[in-house]
Amino acid sequence: MGNLDERVEGSKDELLEELKEFLRMPSISAREEGAEGFRECAEWVRSRLESAGAQAKIMETEGHPVVYAEIGEGDKTLLSYGHYDVQPPEPLELWESKPFEPAVRDGSLYARGVADDKGDVLARIQALRLYQEEFGPLPFKLKFLIEGEEEVGSPSLPAFVRENAELLSADACIWEGSIKDEANRPVIFCGTKGMAYVELRAKGPSHDLHSMYGGIAPNPAWRLVQALRTIKDENGDITLDGFMEMADPPTEKDLEAISRIPFDEAALKASWDVEAFDRNLTGEEALKEYLLRPTANIAGMQSGYTGPGSKTIVPSEAFVKMDFRLVVGQDHKRVVELVREHLKKRGFDDIEVVDMHGLEPAKTPVDSPVVRTAVAAWEDLGSEDAVVYPTIGGSGPTSLVATDLGIPTIMTGNVANAASRIHSPNESVRLADYFESVGYFARFFRRFAD
Amino acid sequence: MGNLDERVEGSKDELLEELKEFLRMPSISAREEGAEGFRECAEWVRSRLESAGAQAKIMETEGHPVVYAEIGEGDKTLLSYGHYDVQPPEPLELWESKPFEPAVRDGSLYARGVADDKGDVLARIQALRLYQEEFGPLPFKLKFLIEGEEEVGSPSLPAFVRENAELLSADACIWEGSIKDEANRPVIFCGTKGMAYVELRAKGPSHDLHSMYGGIAPNPAWRLVQALRTIKDENGDITLDGFMEMADPPTEKDLEAISRIPFDEAALKASWDVEAFDRNLTGEEALKEYLLRPTANIAGMQSGYTGPGSKTIVPSEAFVKMDFRLVVGQDHKRVVELVREHLKKRGFDDIEVVDMHGLEPAKTPVDSPVVRTAVAAWEDLGSEDAVVYPTIGGSGPTSLVATDLGIPTIMTGNVANAASRIHSPNESVRLADYFESVGYFARFFRRFAD
Repeated sequence: MGNLDERVEGSKDELLEELKEFLRMPSISAREEGAEGFRECAEWVRSRLESAGAQAKIMETEGHPVVYAEIGEGDKTLLSYGHYDVQPPEPLELWESKPFEPAVRDGSLYARGVADDKGDVLARIQALRLYQEEFGPLPFKLKFLIEGEEEVGSPSLPAFVRENAELLSADACIWEGSIKDEANRPVIFCGTKGMAYVELRAKGPSHDLHSMYGGIAPNPAWRLVQALRTIKDENGDITLDGFMEMADPPTEKDLEAISRIPFDEAALKASWDVEAFDRNLTGEEALKEYLLRPTANIAGMQSGYTGPGSKTIVPSEAFVKMDFRLVVGQDHKRVVELVREHLKKRGFDDIEVVDMHGLEPAKTPVDSPVVRTAVAAWEDLGSEDAVVYPTIGGSGPTSLVATDLGIPTIMTGNVANAASRIHSPNESVRLADYFESVGYFARFFRRFAD
Repeated sequence: MGNLDERVEGSKDELLEELKEFLRMPSISAREEGAEGFRECAEWVRSRLESAGAQAKIMETEGHPVVYAEIGEGDKTLLSYGHYDVQPPEPLELWESKPFEPAVRDGSLYARGVADDKGDVLARIQALRLYQEEFGPLPFKLKFLIEGEEEVGSPSLPAFVRENAELLSADACIWEGSIKDEANRPVIFCGTKGMAYVELRAKGPSHDLHSMYGGIAPNPAWRLVQALRTIKDENGDITLDGFMEMADPPTEKDLEAISRIPFDEAALKASWDVEAFDRNLTGEEALKEYLLRPTANIAGMQSGYTGPGSKTIVPSEAFVKMDFRLVVGQDHKRVVELVREHLKKRGFDDIEVVDMHGLEPAKTPVDSPVVRTAVAAWEDLGSEDAVVYPTIGGSGPTSLVATDLGIPTIMTGNVANAASRIHSPNESVRLADYFESVGYFARFFRRFAD
């Protein structure tokens, strides 16, 4: 495929300019204002798809529009999912260059969204263009589903997928791109965890009291602590009634895949500046916990006086925000119910359990054909060390495609890397990775056509 | 003493205007800024004392100044303690009128500090003025000690009292005022609990992490929950090693006094809008818990994301603010050590225990002469139902006087009432109580002179 590489090499300037154009559009889905800028961005994506020869259109949703496109003819169909919206850039003062003014420094491109997910979206479109220049018409059907609400939890996507199940049908799906690991190895993810995000709210007296009443006033902060202690035991193991029991055990193939994942514990701990993982987990046990098991995480909590110095009150209210990451077998609504039932059974029916939002887990078998295609495409590119993860610790709406539509779904492509600071200031990708990714997707299409 | 009552009645407008002037000064001792406003407030108090004929002066400390004054001649000496500083007013949005713009509504005066302790401070000064108008020179020596750091734990007071032990010597001390109970009965307190205010701080990763790592990243919020569960058991009883054992048991006289306290549980619960006390305590058990036993209160806690909606992180830090209220036999420094030893013994030596400040417990016997004086002054005013509490649930630096200087010390006067929302938004006193208190202190002086 030497010619393909030459084509990428020869058009680097144009490819980069096109990417910068995309990155200059501040398509922040968490903002209510700026809906017009959103439509411009969607239109721009549509025009890029058309420039690559696809039939593209804007499709309306309750929220920001979806860009949908099709190209190619053949027996097989590939669905490509991505999103053109980005996270808010704050805190702005931590950016070395402005988030929506893409800047190249030391071989990397800095801008909000470059790693998640605009670089990935455009690399695929550019790969499609170069593929056709090199090999002619695409010998399979390629469908693009590019949404604008991923960073706010894809609220419109479930209905969109349900209503367009036929349109979206495919033999395989490449979800938004994965990221290269700490040692710069390509990574392929075959699943995502689900999530049940809840807020537990406890109420004490109707107003903060002088803590002289601390011996007899019901204290909502203590109440939450007492409730939380029933959710994890003193060893830190999850003891929520029925929760672990709902989780399907990992398959033999998952465990095999886990055993082949190079896991640099020391580097991960160093990057967090911690001496040990939770519960002193190490090695494969830590990796299994990270990737294959559900979690009960406290993302935030607050009660009473939290300013400097000391204030002596019995707080009126307390809350804790928790995200439970779910594995296959568990589902969001049922887990919220479990939390309610668990607390009620222990006399904590005064604690309100608010269902903030959820996502379902999804997994594609690690030996699916699409996984082999992804690995082979890396090999074509000279990377023999692609690592297959049975699932990822994070969550996303992959179940809408993988489970609801029954389409084997993976993440590959690796525009981003472990230092890309996704969702943080100074988000970046290495230019070399970006151009490699364009070549990768062209090879993936070639392999998929086989 | 009909003439005295007429004097109060006839000067209500002036008395109230003077009080409002005091309340307009935002003397928030928890704030580092605004030290100049502090001095103005101290100067104002000094000028009021001088207007009542006392020899008054500002005395410097390491922190905010003390106002000291003396007046009168005789065999006996009475010390009056109060403070001119106030709690922070936050949360501001809950105030119906601004905290430093005193407002009268339905016969009550609303402002930060009106109940704790500016109303009380000024009522005594005004009582002194009216006493002299009615009866002539004071036939005993009255000393005023009015500090500016009570709401931040009186950090400068121990040194001040130590260095001025001779100056402060007295036969009895009336500490800052007590509060009327739910049934509007006058209350006399004969002791205060001590306090050990600590912050427990837990550290996780060096920065907030994506909660996809929730299964293996050390979570400081969970860490705190795990530590806190060792401090109270699942029944809510304190299980801090050695803590309860340090507490002296109540005396026979204390228990007798407790049995005579009319305790309107229903009214207290209604005022807090709760259905039950902590641990479903009721009756004399609740009262003993409130007054005679130590506490382990959570005054505030925070970790991670506490804004609206959901954010999925493993927090980098977590802290909890706790005030332990102490009874005689316990002491502040030793309790902080107990917390450290207790946590260390259970493997929580990663949790930092910060000693924020402390106070020692103190008790004056319920049958002391000054208690009888206080009861008699209420009787003179027509209140036959004054209630004597062996101690109060709250804390203050009374031990500096009661224990270190050996001066029998009580609280009486009752400017405030059970609904005064001390330390909370909409702090208030009833105007009728305020004017009554002016008359009460004048009568107390009369009785003390006997």
